[in-house]
Amino acid sequence: MLKGIAASKGYAIGKISIMSHQEITIDERICDNVDAELTTLKGAVEKSKVQLNALRVKTAENIGEHEAMVFDSHMMFLDDPEFVGAMEEAIRNDMKRAAAAVEQVKIFFENMFSQMDNAYMRERATDIVDVSNRIIKNILGITSEIEDLPENTIIVAHDLTPSDTAQLDKSKVIGFLTDIGGVTSHSAIMARSLEICAVVGMGNITALVENGCECIIDGIKGEVILAPNKDALEKYRKLALEYDKKREELKKYRDIKLAYKDGREILVAGNIGSVKDLDSVIENGADGIGLFRTEFVFMDREAAPTEEEQFEIYKTVAERMSGKPVVIRTLDIGGDKQISYLQLEQEMNPFLGLRAIRLCFKHEEMFKAQIKALLRAGVFGDVQIMLPMIGTIEEIRQAKDIINKCKEELKDANIPFKDETPVGIMIEIPAAAIAADILADEVDFFSIGTNDLIQYTLAVDRMNSNISHLYNPMNVSVLRLIEMSIKAAHKAGIWCGMCGEMAGDLRATKILLEMGLDEFSMSGSSILDVKELIYNQLKNE
Amino acid sequence: MLKGIAASKGYAIGKISIMSHQEITIDERICDNVDAELTTLKGAVEKSKVQLNALRVKTAENIGEHEAMVFDSHMMFLDDPEFVGAMEEAIRNDMKRAAAAVEQVKIFFENMFSQMDNAYMRERATDIVDVSNRIIKNILGITSEIEDLPENTIIVAHDLTPSDTAQLDKSKVIGFLTDIGGVTSHSAIMARSLEICAVVGMGNITALVENGCECIIDGIKGEVILAPNKDALEKYRKLALEYDKKREELKKYRDIKLAYKDGREILVAGNIGSVKDLDSVIENGADGIGLFRTEFVFMDREAAPTEEEQFEIYKTVAERMSGKPVVIRTLDIGGDKQISYLQLEQEMNPFLGLRAIRLCFKHEEMFKAQIKALLRAGVFGDVQIMLPMIGTIEEIRQAKDIINKCKEELKDANIPFKDETPVGIMIEIPAAAIAADILADEVDFFSIGTNDLIQYTLAVDRMNSNISHLYNPMNVSVLRLIEMSIKAAHKAGIWCGMCGEMAGDLRATKILLEMGLDEFSMSGSSILDVKELIYNQLKNE
Repeated sequence: MLKGIAASKGYAIGKISIMSHQEITIDERICDNVDAELTTLKGAVEKSKVQLNALRVKTAENIGEHEAMVFDSHMMFLDDPEFVGAMEEAIRNDMKRAAAAVEQVKIFFENMFSQMDNAYMRERATDIVDVSNRIIKNILGITSEIEDLPENTIIVAHDLTPSDTAQLDKSKVIGFLTDIGGVTSHSAIMARSLEICAVVGMGNITALVENGCECIIDGIKGEVILAPNKDALEKYRKLALEYDKKREELKKYRDIKLAYKDGREILVAGNIGSVKDLDSVIENGADGIGLFRTEFVFMDREAAPTEEEQFEIYKTVAERMSGKPVVIRTLDIGGDKQISYLQLEQEMNPFLGLRAIRLCFKHEEMFKAQIKALLRAGVFGDVQIMLPMIGTIEEIRQAKDIINKCKEELKDANIPFKDETPVGIMIEIPAAAIAADILADEVDFFSIGTNDLIQYTLAVDRMNSNISHLYNPMNVSVLRLIEMSIKAAHKAGIWCGMCGEMAGDLRATKILLEMGLDEFSMSGSSILDVKELIYNQLKNE
Repeated sequence: MLKGIAASKGYAIGKISIMSHQEITIDERICDNVDAELTTLKGAVEKSKVQLNALRVKTAENIGEHEAMVFDSHMMFLDDPEFVGAMEEAIRNDMKRAAAAVEQVKIFFENMFSQMDNAYMRERATDIVDVSNRIIKNILGITSEIEDLPENTIIVAHDLTPSDTAQLDKSKVIGFLTDIGGVTSHSAIMARSLEICAVVGMGNITALVENGCECIIDGIKGEVILAPNKDALEKYRKLALEYDKKREELKKYRDIKLAYKDGREILVAGNIGSVKDLDSVIENGADGIGLFRTEFVFMDREAAPTEEEQFEIYKTVAERMSGKPVVIRTLDIGGDKQISYLQLEQEMNPFLGLRAIRLCFKHEEMFKAQIKALLRAGVFGDVQIMLPMIGTIEEIRQAKDIINKCKEELKDANIPFKDETPVGIMIEIPAAAIAADILADEVDFFSIGTNDLIQYTLAVDRMNSNISHLYNPMNVSVLRLIEMSIKAAHKAGIWCGMCGEMAGDLRATKILLEMGLDEFSMSGSSILDVKELIYNQLKNE
């Protein structure tokens, strides 16, 4: 039995198909006709754009807007005169043939990016290689390899590029295994979004298997069995059946109403990043939206979305949730999330930098457009405004001044809006939790953002593999800050929710119930598990 | 009157000398003799090394080890085959003359570094220019410009490079003004170390003045008066006299013993980075060393210092403090401070990364050498071990296990050491302050590191100019954490000090006394001011 990192839950029993990236021979002879090669290159670049655009749309539809964004950065390279221009120059000046020119430029940029000290920039090297290989394949007329797979295929690869994963056909591929990667790597995130099971970081699985080899994946334990015997097959078929049955059974918790002994209701809500995510959240019986991350509305564009564009989106979400609470977080950009048109500076410690509400205060017109869109959407449902990265009472007052200004302007323009739209804050900076008693008097609700709160409280960047073992949601100081926040909220008569990953972490549910948390908000796929656990927990008390 | 950023306290009345970087004409003709130019280049590079080495020694002696380190990075460039090799190639392949070759390579690397997204790398562009210009001047036989200045000179420059400031003769130069820079810029730090007054970030002061123009600097308010009239001269001569008198008067607080009403003593201690800093600390009457930053013992070397080397240093400090407490912090490297031989990875958020105790746990042998040196130095004075970046009780226990192992090994080897050496922790991660009551039972003292504690509590990188206005030591949550730490310490019967900048900030002294802080530790130059304020504060109660 082989071990790896469990990246996406579930079981898969199928036949292996190794995705080895085909060896491509590049013709390095001097070219005969510069113009012909330039035309070939141009055609291949255009074809790549069309393919990327299609992949982008397909990914956005099948997986999600966020996952689709990687293709935008590929397209950006194709629009970068430095990148394509260097290829043209290699044809003109060095008399290279088109494929050789792309290969040369690929190697140059790959080296440049991969030697950079900055991890973000180093990752761009992968994109460069992915998009360059696409152009080369288009020049040479090589078509993609993940087509015509049989059903119940388990893909084995060194790693899966975004281009690879976007093409995975869920009706054929039931799981995948990779040599490298971790829980937060691109391929792992895609696997969870696609709901196909995956084990990553297996070391050298590509060297150990052969095409067609039978294989079992245990995506819960991160285990893989090659050429399983009858007993193993029987055991895992049973486990898989039970797993599916369990998923089915959980559906009975979809419409259950949960409440504390004193009658205070407990909401299990969903986190969404776009309108598309609503389906899963609604299907899993969310009692509302506890976190709508609006940054994806702002990303991947030439300019900020207008008030009208935003209004339509927020209105749609409000309407589809038919009266259930919809907590919409104002733009939380900066840090690891960038927007080209804001021209954010690269920072030494982005997590301690200019982001979220701090950035919105610097771009007040953009912030006002969002606030107005939210106030207007409030007419169509229970929209609640949530402010991220609040650390002090001064920041709350500054935000409320802007909200009031927006209301005045809407009033003056005779545009309908909901005057009593609740305004709450994320509790994600330690200072906010420590002063929760003071801040509670100024707002209508708290929502604890555990991901950041834990990072700052423990001074641990959880994306940093050198120290991620220190990232511990159950740390006593973290729990104390959570409890302080909940108590302060209740003392001020407001509700306190949680929208970080801890809210969907079953190991934390019991203690959060003991603290009296009012709302748990998480990704759609966790809602039913948490509802079941809360139901059983309260029943046993 | 002109305004700028007050960078170094005091008053200066003198005559301006503008330090404009001389225009250098570079001969761009094709060279006649490649070998001759290569020899010229080699000679200039060697001469530059000699100069840099001399500057390094001079700066280390006159200013400090830390300030001298910039010249190491200059020397590193001279030893970098990519840098000097590119110059040789420009002579060989492009037939450039030596100076033109250096200029070309300078521009190439300056562009490369200055376009990087990373602020640290961008700063390297300044070093590249500084060291390249040094080579060019040596090729052309141009000597430095800051020589033969009259007394009472005020230097005006666009900015001062490390090479410039290292050459400032304190007997001649009484202050300086620059167009650019901030409180934490290199030139500002140098000015404070040299104790000459300075106003920086003045915009275009170089364009406004002429050589020999009379000028007054108010380094306290950050104000500058050009061509002052009689009244102004009189006023500022008086202010300068008063300032000097005040500095003199403060000396009476040197040996004063401070204590709370209940008799509990209050120590005003010094922060040091090397043995050399002891003079200033002792002269200003420090009641001990509250923070010896040992990272400078480890930096700027080919390999980690041996146990013996460290023992000699710690022993010297212990002896020179003649029995007064000497709190020595174990290696606090990583984050913004790097050590080449540890080959630390560049991190996305270094302040939330692998640093200090976290790093020491990964390099246990190196950590043990330091612990043993500290235990042994304890025989010669009141040495106390302080662990940085502690967040949890598990980390304290892990460190204490290692300390016990060191004691066993010293015992087995019959090497004398102090068994009862106190072990304390920095309180600089919010988690440590929040769980101070739990941690207090495990250690002998706390010392609050406000710089980091504030950064993490408020999620603000204070070096980031976009948000440094949010860095507020008097924030209510920060003050609550400080009070929690002091209370927890006293409840457990241990003392609690403070060694961050807040300890020397006169605006915070009163509130810290109210909280019952036991020890204030700061740079030597602030000790007497704080002693005076504490004395007066307690007298008035």
